[in-house]
Amino acid sequence: MSADWFRRRFLPRGPLPAPRPPRPRASPVPYRRPRFLRGSGSSSGTADASRRPDARPVRSPVRGRSLPWNAGYAEIINAEKSEFNEDQAACGKLCIRRCEFGVEEDQEWLTLCSEEFLTGHYWALFDGHGGPAAAILAANTLHSCLRRQLEAVVEGMVATQPPMHLSGHCICPSDPQFVEEKGIRTEDLVIGALESAFQECDEVIGRELEASGQVGGCTALVAVSLKGKLYVANAGDSRAILVRRDEVRPLSSEFTPETERQRIQQLAFIYPELLAGEFTRLEFPRRLKGDDLGQKVLFRDHHMSGWSYKCVEKSDLKYPLIHGQGRQARLLGTLAVSRGLGDHQLRVLDTNIQLKPFLLSVPQVTVLNMDQLEPQEEDVVVMATDGLWDVLSNEQVARLVRSFLPGNREDPHRFSELAKMLIRSTQGTDDSPIQEGQVSYDDVSVFVIPLHHQGQGHSSH
Amino acid sequence: MSADWFRRRFLPRGPLPAPRPPRPRASPVPYRRPRFLRGSGSSSGTADASRRPDARPVRSPVRGRSLPWNAGYAEIINAEKSEFNEDQAACGKLCIRRCEFGVEEDQEWLTLCSEEFLTGHYWALFDGHGGPAAAILAANTLHSCLRRQLEAVVEGMVATQPPMHLSGHCICPSDPQFVEEKGIRTEDLVIGALESAFQECDEVIGRELEASGQVGGCTALVAVSLKGKLYVANAGDSRAILVRRDEVRPLSSEFTPETERQRIQQLAFIYPELLAGEFTRLEFPRRLKGDDLGQKVLFRDHHMSGWSYKCVEKSDLKYPLIHGQGRQARLLGTLAVSRGLGDHQLRVLDTNIQLKPFLLSVPQVTVLNMDQLEPQEEDVVVMATDGLWDVLSNEQVARLVRSFLPGNREDPHRFSELAKMLIRSTQGTDDSPIQEGQVSYDDVSVFVIPLHHQGQGHSSH
Repeated sequence: MSADWFRRRFLPRGPLPAPRPPRPRASPVPYRRPRFLRGSGSSSGTADASRRPDARPVRSPVRGRSLPWNAGYAEIINAEKSEFNEDQAACGKLCIRRCEFGVEEDQEWLTLCSEEFLTGHYWALFDGHGGPAAAILAANTLHSCLRRQLEAVVEGMVATQPPMHLSGHCICPSDPQFVEEKGIRTEDLVIGALESAFQECDEVIGRELEASGQVGGCTALVAVSLKGKLYVANAGDSRAILVRRDEVRPLSSEFTPETERQRIQQLAFIYPELLAGEFTRLEFPRRLKGDDLGQKVLFRDHHMSGWSYKCVEKSDLKYPLIHGQGRQARLLGTLAVSRGLGDHQLRVLDTNIQLKPFLLSVPQVTVLNMDQLEPQEEDVVVMATDGLWDVLSNEQVARLVRSFLPGNREDPHRFSELAKMLIRSTQGTDDSPIQEGQVSYDDVSVFVIPLHHQGQGHSSH
Repeated sequence: MSADWFRRRFLPRGPLPAPRPPRPRASPVPYRRPRFLRGSGSSSGTADASRRPDARPVRSPVRGRSLPWNAGYAEIINAEKSEFNEDQAACGKLCIRRCEFGVEEDQEWLTLCSEEFLTGHYWALFDGHGGPAAAILAANTLHSCLRRQLEAVVEGMVATQPPMHLSGHCICPSDPQFVEEKGIRTEDLVIGALESAFQECDEVIGRELEASGQVGGCTALVAVSLKGKLYVANAGDSRAILVRRDEVRPLSSEFTPETERQRIQQLAFIYPELLAGEFTRLEFPRRLKGDDLGQKVLFRDHHMSGWSYKCVEKSDLKYPLIHGQGRQARLLGTLAVSRGLGDHQLRVLDTNIQLKPFLLSVPQVTVLNMDQLEPQEEDVVVMATDGLWDVLSNEQVARLVRSFLPGNREDPHRFSELAKMLIRSTQGTDDSPIQEGQVSYDDVSVFVIPLHHQGQGHSSH
């Protein structure tokens, strides 16, 4: 992506063209539930038919089907917010093949052997909006993008330290020292591959949705185990936490119009054209009205962490670029997340104002070194879409994990049972720890990934 | 500042105009040392005359002159790097007057009483580059800008919670609730005032330097005590830390081309014109050369935290936007800091490429709640320019503080003695804790601010 591209794409001269009516050239992306749920309940091709709020089924893989690392999974569909469950999930083994340089002078890439070279594992949650299509495409695609990106740098990943040149040729004798001084580690190549894979997947989704005349977007939360490390990449408002006996550690942070206010306001400052005169980029405690004109009111602009007062002018009465608090916060009155995949066609209702320039597909990546962690018997990573975290805090989830696991050591399916229990805790039933009235009506999907005796210190060849 | 202003200022159409030759209309800013050093040694109007590297004097206020909170101060000039000491310092009482609204319908601001309303204290360090003028102007000006900005919002600061309207009129009955929901606290108004004051001061410096035909820039590190809180605002590579018996806590972080790489690369991505075809915005482990052409080498772009490989093209051989590691890292081959005041005229040597668009004057602000902290006898804040931190780590400084203070309880001047001792520890003399060869040849300035029995729980009226 170049600056020119950005300008051509989002800043056409003259009035904005009307959004192209979708001209489907491909068949729509079919709705489905994750493959690993096959045989676990209602058929995967259709939405759940009867859905009384108090009788939505919690689904998890059938007993006997095991997910990578014996991870647990469970999901529940929303309380009639949408026809389909807009969450999607994927997991599996990640097989990285080795590509080797040819020995010729012209150095073409040749795949000399196609068998597995490095293997890892992959768990992913996608929370869709505006329809299920983007989340389904992401669940179908992201792992392939990641595999491709990892294969492109695998030569660098297997070295103790990434070489300056991927060919391994050393052009300058002090190249290893330059790499050392920059502090570049092999894990930085995995982080780079995750960043590239999210962007590649976003482009694929854009093309596929355009071709099939569909719309929509999704968040993406991915955990990848590779060579003794667990990478958690997040773009959106899902969340992953590490739960140990004496520790609860966030492994991701949420990207919403509130948490990314300064980045979003900054872009509107640089390209005011993106707001088409319809929105104000400034933040106020509430939407201003005529009576506020001429008054000095609290406000915040892109360069401010603190607050100040400004004299209200007419342009301040426009609808705010970011409006509402907490769960209600919306970007351009439309979207509750500021990072994710898809949304290429999304516009503010009845306008040509596009959301996409304000959205990032690049994830934030955190790394858990499993060797250093020395995971104990009941250490787990809990990954879930926002439906869980809207109702349960990290500490509440940790308490539920710690109270459930010790009593269920014999059940091989216990991590899925834990995931189901976590979801039931959001439904206001059972002896749930949530406060009266705090019930999730959203789609909720949960992975519970046990860490003990997993992914440590071995790089399989 | 508006986007249009930015474009007009930094992106003229056609070839860039040659920098205007300075036409001095005002007399140059006279060189001086901080006022509170008067009587402490060499005269303040000239540079220190004889300066053998091993015989540079460490200066501190004369015994008997006390700084706010009985803070200590010491400084040393660089080892012949420049004619003048380019560091500057300022401290004093901060007197905020109350401005009250008139009762008239037209609501003009009236200063009804001009006596002190709120008082605080102020300590500041400025590390100049390209001449001493910007640092001297900042030392002369920033506290006035801050007082003005605080007076503009003082009505909001003295309330339990900042009112939506500065007039105190309540236009919408639920305004206090909106402010509450946004989590806006009175300290956010001080943070906002500090942010605005830095920007205002930057504009003043720009005007004054242009008028006097001088050049230069400086970093700014400011501590402000107000209503039981200590605010630390930083723009540049100076540093403040809190040292307690059992704790060392950073109160600022450094802003350099390395720490702000993504912001700087992002701007070059948005406005490639700023590089005038002379620089590449991409980061590589070292500067590339002809032999690298066509090779796949490690690189990083603005959206990447991780690293990846790219095939080297000719444009990648240009000089990098950010080059060098650690202390050697430079922005556009020129500047070692990415935030600060001044540098309005600074250009890359022999080109028209401007540095200013890449620099921020806005500080990062951290807040220390003195009531919660319950400072003990020997808790201090150490503020110093980079000359100290290049040679001593936070932990080494903390050890020196803890070893010095208990043995010197009777000396009323002990905090300046401590500041002097810290500086001597950077000179490779005494029984210094630094490693062989690690000696500071830079200007070094240090404030040591004792926290015990200071600034707690009282808002003076």
